[in-house]
Amino acid sequence: MVELGVVYRNIARADRDIAARLGALGTATVHEAMGRTGLLKPYLRPIYPGANAAGTAVTVLLHPGDNWMLHVVVEQIQPGDIVVAAITADCTDGYFGDLLATSFKARGAQGLVIDAGVRDVSVLAEMKFPVWSKAISAKGTVKATLGSVNVPVVCAGALVTPGDVVVADDDGVVVVPAALARKTLDAAAAREANEGEKRAKLAAGVLGLDMYNMREPLKKAGFKYID
Amino acid sequence: MVELGVVYRNIARADRDIAARLGALGTATVHEAMGRTGLLKPYLRPIYPGANAAGTAVTVLLHPGDNWMLHVVVEQIQPGDIVVAAITADCTDGYFGDLLATSFKARGAQGLVIDAGVRDVSVLAEMKFPVWSKAISAKGTVKATLGSVNVPVVCAGALVTPGDVVVADDDGVVVVPAALARKTLDAAAAREANEGEKRAKLAAGVLGLDMYNMREPLKKAGFKYID
Amino acid sequence: MVELGVVYRNIARADRDIAARLGALGTATVHEAMGRTGLLKPYLRPIYPGANAAGTAVTVLLHPGDNWMLHVVVEQIQPGDIVVAAITADCTDGYFGDLLATSFKARGAQGLVIDAGVRDVSVLAEMKFPVWSKAISAKGTVKATLGSVNVPVVCAGALVTPGDVVVADDDGVVVVPAALARKTLDAAAAREANEGEKRAKLAAGVLGLDMYNMREPLKKAGFKYID
Amino acid sequence: MVELGVVYRNIARADRDIAARLGALGTATVHEAMGRTGLLKPYLRPIYPGANAAGTAVTVLLHPGDNWMLHVVVEQIQPGDIVVAAITADCTDGYFGDLLATSFKARGAQGLVIDAGVRDVSVLAEMKFPVWSKAISAKGTVKATLGSVNVPVVCAGALVTPGDVVVADDDGVVVVPAALARKTLDAAAAREANEGEKRAKLAAGVLGLDMYNMREPLKKAGFKYID
Amino acid sequence: MVELGVVYRNIARADRDIAARLGALGTATVHEAMGRTGLLKPYLRPIYPGANAAGTAVTVLLHPGDNWMLHVVVEQIQPGDIVVAAITADCTDGYFGDLLATSFKARGAQGLVIDAGVRDVSVLAEMKFPVWSKAISAKGTVKATLGSVNVPVVCAGALVTPGDVVVADDDGVVVVPAALARKTLDAAAAREANEGEKRAKLAAGVLGLDMYNMREPLKKAGFKYID
Amino acid sequence: MVELGVVYRNIARADRDIAARLGALGTATVHEAMGRTGLLKPYLRPIYPGANAAGTAVTVLLHPGDNWMLHVVVEQIQPGDIVVAAITADCTDGYFGDLLATSFKARGAQGLVIDAGVRDVSVLAEMKFPVWSKAISAKGTVKATLGSVNVPVVCAGALVTPGDVVVADDDGVVVVPAALARKTLDAAAAREANEGEKRAKLAAGVLGLDMYNMREPLKKAGFKYID
Repeated sequence: MVELGVVYRNIARADRDIAARLGALGTATVHEAMGRTGLLKPYLRPIYPGANAAGTAVTVLLHPGDNWMLHVVVEQIQPGDIVVAAITADCTDGYFGDLLATSFKARGAQGLVIDAGVRDVSVLAEMKFPVWSKAISAKGTVKATLGSVNVPVVCAGALVTPGDVVVADDDGVVVVPAALARKTLDAAAAREANEGEKRAKLAAGVLGLDMYNMREPLKKAGFKYID
Repeated sequence: MVELGVVYRNIARADRDIAARLGALGTATVHEAMGRTGLLKPYLRPIYPGANAAGTAVTVLLHPGDNWMLHVVVEQIQPGDIVVAAITADCTDGYFGDLLATSFKARGAQGLVIDAGVRDVSVLAEMKFPVWSKAISAKGTVKATLGSVNVPVVCAGALVTPGDVVVADDDGVVVVPAALARKTLDAAAAREANEGEKRAKLAAGVLGLDMYNMREPLKKAGFKYID
Repeated sequence: MVELGVVYRNIARADRDIAARLGALGTATVHEAMGRTGLLKPYLRPIYPGANAAGTAVTVLLHPGDNWMLHVVVEQIQPGDIVVAAITADCTDGYFGDLLATSFKARGAQGLVIDAGVRDVSVLAEMKFPVWSKAISAKGTVKATLGSVNVPVVCAGALVTPGDVVVADDDGVVVVPAALARKTLDAAAAREANEGEKRAKLAAGVLGLDMYNMREPLKKAGFKYID
Repeated sequence: MVELGVVYRNIARADRDIAARLGALGTATVHEAMGRTGLLKPYLRPIYPGANAAGTAVTVLLHPGDNWMLHVVVEQIQPGDIVVAAITADCTDGYFGDLLATSFKARGAQGLVIDAGVRDVSVLAEMKFPVWSKAISAKGTVKATLGSVNVPVVCAGALVTPGDVVVADDDGVVVVPAALARKTLDAAAAREANEGEKRAKLAAGVLGLDMYNMREPLKKAGFKYID
Repeated sequence: MVELGVVYRNIARADRDIAARLGALGTATVHEAMGRTGLLKPYLRPIYPGANAAGTAVTVLLHPGDNWMLHVVVEQIQPGDIVVAAITADCTDGYFGDLLATSFKARGAQGLVIDAGVRDVSVLAEMKFPVWSKAISAKGTVKATLGSVNVPVVCAGALVTPGDVVVADDDGVVVVPAALARKTLDAAAAREANEGEKRAKLAAGVLGLDMYNMREPLKKAGFKYID
Repeated sequence: MVELGVVYRNIARADRDIAARLGALGTATVHEAMGRTGLLKPYLRPIYPGANAAGTAVTVLLHPGDNWMLHVVVEQIQPGDIVVAAITADCTDGYFGDLLATSFKARGAQGLVIDAGVRDVSVLAEMKFPVWSKAISAKGTVKATLGSVNVPVVCAGALVTPGDVVVADDDGVVVVPAALARKTLDAAAAREANEGEKRAKLAAGVLGLDMYNMREPLKKAGFKYID
């Protein structure tokens, strides 16, 4: 049962530097390095092209049409954090706009991931404050019902625990549990290391069929070429 | 029952200058000033980033896959109007393209809001003719069945009466009844007036919790901080 | 029944030059020239604004979450081809990224149309490699199950036969059967020919109602103007 | 702008007997008799097969996740009414259950049409209290924000004015403006009158092609039979 | 390119008896026997529980909101046929009701599969005329634009050629190309043959893990049991 | 990060009797008793009307199109358990049919909750084996990739930990953490206790407005009655 009406002030954040380095590798690489887990549903989209962010998760649980807790969460933001907002039921209202973004920025937030809508998106784009949302909507919200801050939440189908690393870019949003951040960084970096060499080969016309030794397994699986 | 096969030539338009000033304030502010009503559903999206328009509504009712009435509505457009198109059933066809946009522009239309699809969107973007639609589709339409022009329509979930003010930007589309346009402008302008001061405070690190005096109501509601 | 586990190496491609000329006319005009048929569903969207491509179809049939056949199809690409990928069930996974795009480009592919997701979209946009997809997702895929290459496929609701012409731009994707490519080009070019003249008239304020002689049929249909 | 925080106690109801007779003809016939207008979107579905109802509309406007006004509307229900509930934003919460249904029934309500969710559906089915909703959900609602009763509302894409006739069955929900109820009944009854004869002919093997004299118009339109 | 405005009168139907026997095996078994291909998208649902049908496909291509061709197709129905209706764009209108069903039944049709909406569903259920559709809607259609009868169509994502076997039940709809009908029947019947024995074992508590010899491959794949 | 390739054999189940008693109270009451939390998304629907089940959760994590772990989970089922199946990406395939249901029943499973599709639904209904799913589909699945059994999963937007109580009926599915089961039962039973009395009053015509003392708060909120 989700705990309502509480803020946890002390959370164990993953290492900030590791978060930044995971961010540099990008969501696709990080998600692969975690055995293809950790991805939030792809309906979350950045509000402008080229948006990217990485940080440690500060979570917030909101009710439909009510953004009270987004005002509460500000005080808990530390430089390097990324805010992850979940809603207790499906909602596309515009929970977040340029005033809140100003406040988030002043506290050092890297961005916002929200399973609902946001507004003032042209101002947010000018401010270069990155947001991943499921909708854009001018619809305002009330401040009436208690949610929570820094409790574990399910956001866009994934469990996010406060302090986890969150990486977000044009390809989506991925969450890395704090305890696995370093191990995931190592795996992701290793994966990235030989991408340049592969790219050069492929650009030169080498076929993946040969580079990845796929011809034999295809044959074994009964694959046929017909002229 | 919707009246079919008619054009109303004389409609009572809201003041054009008020419409323009509401447009300058933007959809989020206008929608708040109306007590959070008047918003069309957020699935309507601009066809290019930064699109914005405001004007007095000329309405058109169309049938699925039939854009005949879009040719009829042109003659009723006056400078400063914005065309609002509703369809009698869900449809994503491309009802509107660059030729119609040329005609709309020649008559002084500020933009188009349509609960269906449009096409030639790269040309429309070059022309800077703003459109809010629910789809983009190359699919053409016939000219076979009578709809109506300048009757009240339900567009994307909202009732739009000819002459109403329509404001549209990156955050969506909002309709303001003509009779309430001035009052809404006053309320919206008042709302806007102190935003600059708030933004400065928030940018300086003042918390919304304090600026909006939220700590007391949170306490009363039983909110708890846990270390 | 779809044939699984085969590659057809020899396909009859439509004329490459005709494909390019159809591409220059754009999807809306080509789709009209085919009697308003041939359009893929409008949920397929380009991954960046202004993307456009035209070519001869090389098809690939994939399973959900499995991109093995995208590695196989590379070898079958000839300069001027466009790859059309169908999936045997709905899936939004990211089947295609920058490495495959490098390989596709090296073979002369004009673009990719895929009824699923892709990733690395910011890199793809920098590479100017155009893709039309139904989703963007960092989610990776396995290479485990045999599909097919160059069999007829149903992609986003349309039948695509290897060698057909595919035209794609901001308005969507249209397929032209190889046997009808020349005839369609003629019809499309004829349609395009007098667009400039029409545009000039409309820009000068001539009404479509008059230019298209619509007043008489409207009257006959019982259309009424009310003052 | 929708008026919030009011109940209109005196509404002009359409004739109750006419409403009942329209109900006996069914939604498809009534919708045809109105020139194919008046239908609510087909995502509204009855909560059990065979549900049907007809009556005069008592309307209620609700906020997402808040069913306060459903308690208010009860007092305004007169025998023969059907309650039509619209929400100011998309919501699937369960606004209505067996206790409210007991109250509605006690007041003589014929049923409920709601553009949101309901719950206790197995009890409602046992009670034979018909409901058309867009979702079924156990999720409860609060009683916190003022909406309105007996103002015009847009419900599932259609404008419903208090006192209008509403007819609902397995095929959906249709609204008939009070002023047009009698005329619509006449047209619907005329339409129904010769259905029995037609059905008998068709059952005997007469083709619609002949019964409706379609062969000539098909030929004129260029239709071809190929052996 | 889809051919418009034609009826093919002579089509090569699969063997009627084979169709019936495939129907007795059900969609799940038939789809498996075809290597897990041939299934129409699962948004097609029967209009009443327990609906099932099997027959040879007579196809019809319709335009959005226009059911003219459903009147034309009646004459082409032979006893044992099942009608498969595709639409040139997404549409949920009610194309088919009790009068057409009476006509279809008089000609010996086994059922209807339609990628759109139907109406009069309570009467259709009483008549025991099975229909698989993507929507139920009272919305009527016009008879204005030529489609085609007995051309290959893409219906709910699958290619259906006239004369193919179509099997439909509570689990969905599957199409079997005429040329593969006998072979598929053999494979499906073989598959079915030992289901009874399996069911008895499982009911007696034998684990699928043992019956299907899965323990070894699980171990090889690195699967771990943790106490 | 979700752990893949493991089965936890020893899980701490909530009290079986408490689970049954929560089941008797139904999802709506249990969800209210938990402060309106714990509900799975309402797109999960029972495969037949009247389905209901309650038990302790045995969880399984599956990959798209792959039901291998459903065979593995059988061995971990104890009488009184309910299986909760999550998928690593959206999928509507038919993961579960009558053979697996036979096995589940033999082990004493109370039902299945699955965030994907199932098949053989008419047989499952005859067997009275209750299933809540997001789709019905004949599409089969492979047995190729390792998932997990009895790890915490996110199913239809809610976190389910092995051993939690799951209650499911016509109104949806709710999860109660094991540690809160007894407390929730007490709260739910208390809530239920006075429902009968309320129902009697409402049936006798007492208004909720009076019974719940709503007139005063309505007045305070500025609510107006207009004659």
